[in-house]
Amino acid sequence: MGGVRLVVVAGTTATAAIDGISAAGADTDLRTHTPSADLEIVETGRPAPDSPVPVSPTGCPTPAAVTRAVRELLGPESLPVEAVDAGLTAPTAAAVRDVGATPGGDVRDPEPVPEAATVFERARALAPELAAPNEGGDRARDAEEEPAELLVAETIPGGTTTALGVLTALGERAAVSSSLPANPIERKRRVVAEALAASDLEAGGAAGDPIAAVRLAGDPVLAAASGLIAGAADAGVDVTLAGGTQLAAAGALARHAGVDRPLPLATTTLVADDPTADLPALAADLDLRLAAADPGFGEADHPAMAAYARGEAKEGVGMGGALALAERAGVADAAVRERIAAVTDRLLAERAEDGGSADGSPRSTGGVTR
Amino acid sequence: MGGVRLVVVAGTTATAAIDGISAAGADTDLRTHTPSADLEIVETGRPAPDSPVPVSPTGCPTPAAVTRAVRELLGPESLPVEAVDAGLTAPTAAAVRDVGATPGGDVRDPEPVPEAATVFERARALAPELAAPNEGGDRARDAEEEPAELLVAETIPGGTTTALGVLTALGERAAVSSSLPANPIERKRRVVAEALAASDLEAGGAAGDPIAAVRLAGDPVLAAASGLIAGAADAGVDVTLAGGTQLAAAGALARHAGVDRPLPLATTTLVADDPTADLPALAADLDLRLAAADPGFGEADHPAMAAYARGEAKEGVGMGGALALAERAGVADAAVRERIAAVTDRLLAERAEDGGSADGSPRSTGGVTR
Repeated sequence: MGGVRLVVVAGTTATAAIDGISAAGADTDLRTHTPSADLEIVETGRPAPDSPVPVSPTGCPTPAAVTRAVRELLGPESLPVEAVDAGLTAPTAAAVRDVGATPGGDVRDPEPVPEAATVFERARALAPELAAPNEGGDRARDAEEEPAELLVAETIPGGTTTALGVLTALGERAAVSSSLPANPIERKRRVVAEALAASDLEAGGAAGDPIAAVRLAGDPVLAAASGLIAGAADAGVDVTLAGGTQLAAAGALARHAGVDRPLPLATTTLVADDPTADLPALAADLDLRLAAADPGFGEADHPAMAAYARGEAKEGVGMGGALALAERAGVADAAVRERIAAVTDRLLAERAEDGGSADGSPRSTGGVTR
Repeated sequence: MGGVRLVVVAGTTATAAIDGISAAGADTDLRTHTPSADLEIVETGRPAPDSPVPVSPTGCPTPAAVTRAVRELLGPESLPVEAVDAGLTAPTAAAVRDVGATPGGDVRDPEPVPEAATVFERARALAPELAAPNEGGDRARDAEEEPAELLVAETIPGGTTTALGVLTALGERAAVSSSLPANPIERKRRVVAEALAASDLEAGGAAGDPIAAVRLAGDPVLAAASGLIAGAADAGVDVTLAGGTQLAAAGALARHAGVDRPLPLATTTLVADDPTADLPALAADLDLRLAAADPGFGEADHPAMAAYARGEAKEGVGMGGALALAERAGVADAAVRERIAAVTDRLLAERAEDGGSADGSPRSTGGVTR
């Protein structure tokens, strides 16, 4: 085993701006900056000076804080991070891999992801590179070492709606979770119905054609994530889908692309137990081995964990996969919660400093959702 | 000491297409792809499948092969690499940092680098991030650890001509080296004279105004490299200019931006001894501590080293700085030469495989120069 690497696929979709879809949607700054800031937080523990701090007014931090907390507990070198630019809108200080993506259009456009095929193929070619032994390393000397296992994760506001679009287009179970405590699933279904009509597509009309499903009813993160999964499968590299319904949609795309390799889906109990999503049934349909991590957020006396326990955020940026790794490494739940609290407090302190900046404008106001 | 990190600033300038300036200039494929492929070679030891192999017909490989060879000898984890996108034209499989650069225009345009100020400032802000202890790491836990030393390097075909443009605009000694055995310095001087005239600038007209010098007569790599040097100086981070006359020009820009910190310039004897460049005098003018590494290329019985000994390539992609690190680590010159031969042979084998591809077209034909 060559270790584990977290691959965060980060992008944006204009779908997030649709009223009522995403809590971040109403706030252009957060909608466009959150994925860029998430990469920075996972990499260094804080957003770059130019990025807003993705923490909601209720104190619910981006799930990137949870993933970051796990990296700090395991030692960052034990969980290297790779970032893929799948349509970022705002600059990021993180180092990113290019797969030819641009920000996704509104899912109700006829073709929200025109470059879906390119992004899928470039991500497919990239997967074995990301898993190559000894990252940045000496392939000549270590030719016999095993490739790393890839944990594929996402960050894209509005992404559960495009996931619903893709699942519907493929003819799969049309249910997704939400980062809002009350899932606006009916609203999402109406948006997806409009999206399919605009693309002259019926439910199930893109079965067996994952590129068409993404191109007509998805987002660039789904194109890149499913390409990575297919590329890992091609190369015999172990890959875990580290996420909830969005990664399940990426898994569905990979299945429709002919991938029949075992695909674990590592998420949180917050998503797995969401009755509006029925992730266990979707995972069973797609032959994804579902595992759900629960660090006992309900037991923590901290606003961040309380917000998670209320059903805010739920998943994203590899949170469930990271929590599973902490469990596998034998880290106690209490230590995980303590570190999440510490990372969140650091982010809140940054926001406070930032809010006191020269122009007096706070950099973060809305909630964060996907 | 927090170790050493190599920061490769990679970009392109339309200046490379000027007849007789750059051996790569005549070959659009190499001119646009070389910096992208160089990042891949330094990171993984070979170009990505879509990149050409930057090896000249005489068997002279890109200096990236030398830097890569040193990384393999020291262990890649001992010399981590960071890449900055300072105006790449072709895609790269390497992970890159964004500083807002676009490919540079022809130096004879009135404003070849319109975004010079943004690129300089963003690179300046990035420098302390790149040097932060424990890369991607745990700042909370290791807060007391020292930042790393940065080795700033470049890859940009045509870059010695824009370096001459900037030195002239600043009123510094107008002499640069060349990757061609016979330096077309008079041709470069004529191009720079045209460039200054087009920008309504006299020699020395941008003294004390480094942003204007780059904006009107430089390239985006010089903007980013000088920004990194200034940012490192701001943060008290040790920085070495790993290159020849182009890094000297970046050092000149930093001096004109008010940086008075000691700045070592680590290059090869191939550049330092080039009489057409007079790098020792330029370094003395700018108070750069010049050190030149010589791994005895003349003694090697390999076409790659023979080409270097004849004066091809000479420097680039941090070659001189990397050779100095190998020396500092006590690696024998013979071992360095042997590993350079091995990396080059791998690249040539890739090119041979590539030349036999479906469409029969070889991917690399011209020479590589800067």
